[in-house]
Amino acid sequence: MAAGRAPAGRRRVSRRALLGAGGLAALAGAGAGAGAATVAALGSGDEGPAPAVVPFHGPHQAGILTARQSHVRLAAFDLGARTDRGRAAALLRRWTSAAEHLARGEAVPPGLEPPGSRSVETGVLADSSPARLTLTFGLGPNFFDRTGLAAARPEALTPLPAFPEDQLDPARGDGDLLVQLGADDPFVTTHVLRVLQRLAHGEAKLRWTMTGFTAADGRRNLMGQVDGTNNPDPARALLDGPGVPTWLAGGSYVVIRRIRMLLDHWDGLPLPHREQALGRRASDGAPLTGGAERTPVDLAAVRPDGVPVIATNAHVRLAAPASNSGATMVRRSWSYHDGPRGDGTPDAGLLFLAWQPDPRTGFVPVQNRLSRGDALSRYLVHEASALFAVPGGVRPGEYVAQALLEG
Amino acid sequence: MAAGRAPAGRRRVSRRALLGAGGLAALAGAGAGAGAATVAALGSGDEGPAPAVVPFHGPHQAGILTARQSHVRLAAFDLGARTDRGRAAALLRRWTSAAEHLARGEAVPPGLEPPGSRSVETGVLADSSPARLTLTFGLGPNFFDRTGLAAARPEALTPLPAFPEDQLDPARGDGDLLVQLGADDPFVTTHVLRVLQRLAHGEAKLRWTMTGFTAADGRRNLMGQVDGTNNPDPARALLDGPGVPTWLAGGSYVVIRRIRMLLDHWDGLPLPHREQALGRRASDGAPLTGGAERTPVDLAAVRPDGVPVIATNAHVRLAAPASNSGATMVRRSWSYHDGPRGDGTPDAGLLFLAWQPDPRTGFVPVQNRLSRGDALSRYLVHEASALFAVPGGVRPGEYVAQALLEG
Repeated sequence: MAAGRAPAGRRRVSRRALLGAGGLAALAGAGAGAGAATVAALGSGDEGPAPAVVPFHGPHQAGILTARQSHVRLAAFDLGARTDRGRAAALLRRWTSAAEHLARGEAVPPGLEPPGSRSVETGVLADSSPARLTLTFGLGPNFFDRTGLAAARPEALTPLPAFPEDQLDPARGDGDLLVQLGADDPFVTTHVLRVLQRLAHGEAKLRWTMTGFTAADGRRNLMGQVDGTNNPDPARALLDGPGVPTWLAGGSYVVIRRIRMLLDHWDGLPLPHREQALGRRASDGAPLTGGAERTPVDLAAVRPDGVPVIATNAHVRLAAPASNSGATMVRRSWSYHDGPRGDGTPDAGLLFLAWQPDPRTGFVPVQNRLSRGDALSRYLVHEASALFAVPGGVRPGEYVAQALLEG
Repeated sequence: MAAGRAPAGRRRVSRRALLGAGGLAALAGAGAGAGAATVAALGSGDEGPAPAVVPFHGPHQAGILTARQSHVRLAAFDLGARTDRGRAAALLRRWTSAAEHLARGEAVPPGLEPPGSRSVETGVLADSSPARLTLTFGLGPNFFDRTGLAAARPEALTPLPAFPEDQLDPARGDGDLLVQLGADDPFVTTHVLRVLQRLAHGEAKLRWTMTGFTAADGRRNLMGQVDGTNNPDPARALLDGPGVPTWLAGGSYVVIRRIRMLLDHWDGLPLPHREQALGRRASDGAPLTGGAERTPVDLAAVRPDGVPVIATNAHVRLAAPASNSGATMVRRSWSYHDGPRGDGTPDAGLLFLAWQPDPRTGFVPVQNRLSRGDALSRYLVHEASALFAVPGGVRPGEYVAQALLEG
């Protein structure tokens, strides 16, 4: 994340504060248009806290360009054996309706639940602000086969190739549907996932979940590295222009990798060794070729003895766009720590999310290089992997991927 | 938590903000006395954010009376086979020194690590505020046997009896040493646990960890209940007076129960059923006998047909001090959600922490009543249990439990 931005926690606004600031309409059942207007008004002051409501509607799904929240829950669902195109559409319609309410901090109204189910609303979030909740939905490669839409599956949505050194757990990867829930309050993401799961009853089953967080100021990962420097403009991850199917216009592709860090090993390395593996200074993230965090890395610099200052296998060298024909990946990642593993080492690392217009020219070539000799990779284990197409944004009255399912 | 208190997130102060506000001394290596003074100065304004530094030193350990933070990591350690009284003392001395630095937001200085180990400091928190970090240490019943101090083990520190319906996993309960890490930033608690674990290398092994969070406004649990109403003054949990050993003066006992909620079952119940099980209104936590959240429950009220308004098996009736000879328990609990279990149901519930001057007259009689017919208990599974004595506070130059280990 950018240096100097406010810690995520300071963005929080209580429901009470929001009401006091005139946000009643945004929380108490107003239509989507009114909600958005209120948010704009609340967000107009540069000095005040950022608004707690991120509009669900728009040209892109929220959660791609949105400034990263402090907490995330990722979940993948698999469609049931009897779920066809019509029933998948009904599920996405239910999820969309619920998302509209939840993002505004409203209760999910009765009637949304699957036929024969009880109301999904138990008031758990009655006192909670939505805390910048975003709900982002994606479609896995298999979604298209399962719904009779194989012909509509984009070429770019081909399952990722195997990479050297991958140690993937299939049970924690892939999936027919993705839900990315970001918020500045883990209580919100936790309960919202539960609501979506209940709305999927009979149609889709939870396949895996992952839980992540950032440091309050969002700068470092659990290896202690300043992370996210030189991230491209997030808008470069979005799809547009001729050849992009209607349902995907304004959308993106996201690659998710659960990357465990071998922290016991890493933390025992001398500082210069850790800095060489990355190619940046641990203290402030500046390149080893000098300057400050945002100074461009000088990949050509050599020491007097002719040895490159940035090692030939340094992460910044192998991951640099210059080394990868300008491959674009917008990283929007979270740390995770799920306690000790069976062998006592930490089950901790990075939920790496890379957003891009085409994984075949983005993640795939970069990871092919990194997995063949990147110095940092020795201390990382890619444990789970998934790829999803993320449909474009939703207008009021529409539902996610409607143009695909009714096309 | 009390109604109307500020959401935990709003208490956060960035390291940068703290430095700007003149808090440099508190962060940059000043002595403990200076640090505490700075905190007092920073905290003097009613309108400003609460200070990010909770003093480690004082008559009680921090993390008992401290307003609950938004995140917690609990961990238990077991002493190694060769760890005797002297080595246990050395470990507590290392942990205490590290805690003094970490609570002030300082790097852990070199030299604290166990002999032969590398520095534990890798700069992970270099940009982070301590975010009200508290480090609270406790001793399990077995600690005393393992260190040749069996004669000094208080009567009250007897392992808890088995309760009906317990489904305890021994691997996730008990332990020789407790560490409770609270902060308003999960990145801080995560890394601090790692530092303590590395400082324990060769002496104590991680036995279990648990991770919890609150809603930003801290009021509800994952069942949707307003929680913590009628919590006694936390100071009532503290030990004092004649008969209390020196090392325990100003200390307390803490019972930890990992209580899984059968949310799939619970959420499907009709609202009146859920309210009867608790004895309070779901919407605002008011007793079913009327009034507001803090109105005393009228346990004697009957309906015209003679049926008690608060059911005979309602949780508020069976848990009420009036039903338990005035038993004192100060609850300071967190929600947890570790994803789906193998059977697809949520691995979610409450990390219930009860602080008390004597578990034999506090938790034990109350839980005996609750586990024999409490209506809420049908939807709860007690999965792990632990009891620790929490020594009194530490003065500069001392270490936790010094009076016990050198007594």
